[in-house]
Amino acid sequence: MPAPLDRRQILVLESVRRFLRRGAFAHLLNLLAKTRPQDFAPLYEEMTEREQVALFRALAERDPELGAAFLVELAPGSGPGLLRRLGPQPAARLLEQCADDDAADLLTELEEEEAKAILEAMRPEEKAGVEQLLIFEEETAGRIMTPEVFSLPEHYTVSEAIRELQTRGSVEMAFYVYVVDERNHLVGVLSLRDLLLHPPDTRLSEIMNTDLITVRTDTDQEEVARIAAKYDLIAIPVLDDQGRLVGMVTIDDVIDVLREEATEDIFRMAGTSEEERIEPSIWKSVRTRSPWLVATFCGGMLASFVISGFQPTLQRVVGLAAFIPIVLGMGGSAGNQTAIVVIRGLATGRIHEGVLLRSFLREIGVAAVLGMVYGLLLAAGSFATLHWLSGLPADRALPVAIVVGSSLAMSMTVATLVGSLLPLALHRLGIDPAISTTPFVTTTTDVVGSLIFLGLATTLLAVL
Amino acid sequence: MPAPLDRRQILVLESVRRFLRRGAFAHLLNLLAKTRPQDFAPLYEEMTEREQVALFRALAERDPELGAAFLVELAPGSGPGLLRRLGPQPAARLLEQCADDDAADLLTELEEEEAKAILEAMRPEEKAGVEQLLIFEEETAGRIMTPEVFSLPEHYTVSEAIRELQTRGSVEMAFYVYVVDERNHLVGVLSLRDLLLHPPDTRLSEIMNTDLITVRTDTDQEEVARIAAKYDLIAIPVLDDQGRLVGMVTIDDVIDVLREEATEDIFRMAGTSEEERIEPSIWKSVRTRSPWLVATFCGGMLASFVISGFQPTLQRVVGLAAFIPIVLGMGGSAGNQTAIVVIRGLATGRIHEGVLLRSFLREIGVAAVLGMVYGLLLAAGSFATLHWLSGLPADRALPVAIVVGSSLAMSMTVATLVGSLLPLALHRLGIDPAISTTPFVTTTTDVVGSLIFLGLATTLLAVL
Repeated sequence: MPAPLDRRQILVLESVRRFLRRGAFAHLLNLLAKTRPQDFAPLYEEMTEREQVALFRALAERDPELGAAFLVELAPGSGPGLLRRLGPQPAARLLEQCADDDAADLLTELEEEEAKAILEAMRPEEKAGVEQLLIFEEETAGRIMTPEVFSLPEHYTVSEAIRELQTRGSVEMAFYVYVVDERNHLVGVLSLRDLLLHPPDTRLSEIMNTDLITVRTDTDQEEVARIAAKYDLIAIPVLDDQGRLVGMVTIDDVIDVLREEATEDIFRMAGTSEEERIEPSIWKSVRTRSPWLVATFCGGMLASFVISGFQPTLQRVVGLAAFIPIVLGMGGSAGNQTAIVVIRGLATGRIHEGVLLRSFLREIGVAAVLGMVYGLLLAAGSFATLHWLSGLPADRALPVAIVVGSSLAMSMTVATLVGSLLPLALHRLGIDPAISTTPFVTTTTDVVGSLIFLGLATTLLAVL
Repeated sequence: MPAPLDRRQILVLESVRRFLRRGAFAHLLNLLAKTRPQDFAPLYEEMTEREQVALFRALAERDPELGAAFLVELAPGSGPGLLRRLGPQPAARLLEQCADDDAADLLTELEEEEAKAILEAMRPEEKAGVEQLLIFEEETAGRIMTPEVFSLPEHYTVSEAIRELQTRGSVEMAFYVYVVDERNHLVGVLSLRDLLLHPPDTRLSEIMNTDLITVRTDTDQEEVARIAAKYDLIAIPVLDDQGRLVGMVTIDDVIDVLREEATEDIFRMAGTSEEERIEPSIWKSVRTRSPWLVATFCGGMLASFVISGFQPTLQRVVGLAAFIPIVLGMGGSAGNQTAIVVIRGLATGRIHEGVLLRSFLREIGVAAVLGMVYGLLLAAGSFATLHWLSGLPADRALPVAIVVGSSLAMSMTVATLVGSLLPLALHRLGIDPAISTTPFVTTTTDVVGSLIFLGLATTLLAVL
């Protein structure tokens, strides 16, 4: 949440602005070097576009490492926008200092032309590292892995391993030591703690853990995150199709994936999606939201055919029309609540094959109780409306009120049944229930609800 | 997702059952020792209650450590149910071998009586550790932390630290070494890698990092997770109100919190919640889901008053009633889609103070386009229904169709405005938009939508 800046942050921001105006870059860099990259993002958002560009131009020229650290911590969407405004040269200087996976991520969100121009301006070896990642499909392990992984040959001893660790400079998140054979096939893993616990001349092959959990470059990122979370891993090694160690996915990327996927699920349930990150076009939004609206539309049209079929009934008691929205609306709400409980239960494993029947019976119970409560409420409410507001005599208002109330109860129960059975059925068929459930629940409720309501009313009026 | 068991799993399951029947516990334990705890859960779910209890009784008696490892990895909700069925003695044996925070978690989900009986049966020192955690409020750092944290006095040297690390047996996730002063105040932190990189006689105080990120026992777990994710920490030290180091929250717990909170958000948006974990009662569900339904109900009742007020219009063109659901339904869908985009944007930081106006204008644009497209579609559809289905002459059906179509466009636009402004307003007021937005969007759409629709129709009929 964008909390307002505190006093310290305001002071820092004001100094940054002053130094920028005066061109006092040495002071500026000095100040920024004391700021945690993660705490920089809220300051950045407060600056004008001009200040943002001037600041990062200066960083790219004088301290690209610091600039890169700030760049990757900006709010989602801000980074690519900045790169575009900086132009290829400064952007390339900054990206050269980013981890390859972060650089690839930022470039992916730019137009192809812009990304190409920046890549061309990068130093060949950095460019090669990033391009190597861009080969992999988005949302796979290959795309989110870091290729900088600390691996050692199996014939090394503990003391050789420690020496190697001391020599190699920047190893990202070196919590594990991966052990490989002469063809770079992963054969074991050690924690740094294992190195400390064994005598210096022990061979890595003697103490390494060979019970490996790995993923492949084409493993879906959601699957990678699930495996890391399940086995409580800080990093997962990534193998190519020959079984060679080519990188690792670290826990911070896993957390990002889990958050992204949660957002995706939430959006899916409303029939929309987190559109392009940078400047989401109106047309793109219209396209993404349309399928869900088409479903609502078709449901609504079907309901209007049903209602049209009952015109003689509506003509006799015009007051009935007033209760169509509440009967359908309550059904829709009850059905969707159930659907979401079931969908999320399936996703988190709370609802599984063993408890299907029990979950289902439970939902019916909930529906019956809710239907009765709100049916009674509506019967009372509609009697009041019909009798006192529309002036219908009590002996004619009462049966109509009973019809309205019992239709509500029935439509809520039917909607709940649909809301719990449909996700289970989709899940069995291997379709993600999050995408497809809610519009169908709404549509079915609209059609069935109006059939129940006007059907009951017609029957009753024929009897009276 | 509950994937079907593969062939290996089925073989293991069959063997487990056979060994259980025969009472061949040595074979049983041998087999289970080769199974990863995380892979055990799906097998467990396939067993009968009797088999589950028999298996864990045997584990509690013969290998409680393995039993505990299996217990904490069961599907959410299964663990507490099992403890209850095992009875206090075997349950206590298993919990003694769990990490204190896991044990506290499992006990929290039992009835107070049951939890107390198990606690009483535990060894005093294990009981004390768990009870100490149970003092803290649920959903705080104190509750999810592990009190077993590896800390050393600041005057220690690197070689002393390494020796200490080698002596102490089971340190959970020892990636960091915390450095404390003589009163156990946290003064610095080191990674294991730092230990390897410095000469053996260096004092910890010389090489430790003093730029500490900490939380307190009463920090909300969501805040803890946010901090860990933001600063890419594998563990966060937890301090008491005197600044003393009392535990740490590890990354696996952070991931659990992030998942839980995502689930909570999803449920809130549908006006329900993840009820009690074990045997959720129908009454509890009814109570949780009611506030949202009450909002829908009130909206529906208001809409019926509005519609009742337009009875003369409905009497003149009964066909109009058929289009009430589609006009209100499309408004509700469009409004809620917008609301969810805005709510999630606020939660993830994509939408912040700096881009409010831009986000808002964008949503209006989307609404206008969607409204026009579906308005035209509905005008065509309603003309067809009125003319061919209800037999209204074309020259009377056409103006009504135009009214229906333009009402839809207007009601979708209004709903989108409400759907984007309301979450922003709630957010400004410091209220979580996820809880309160959707029912209000639906209610407002119902009332405003029917006003627009029947108001337009009445005006038109007066003119014609």
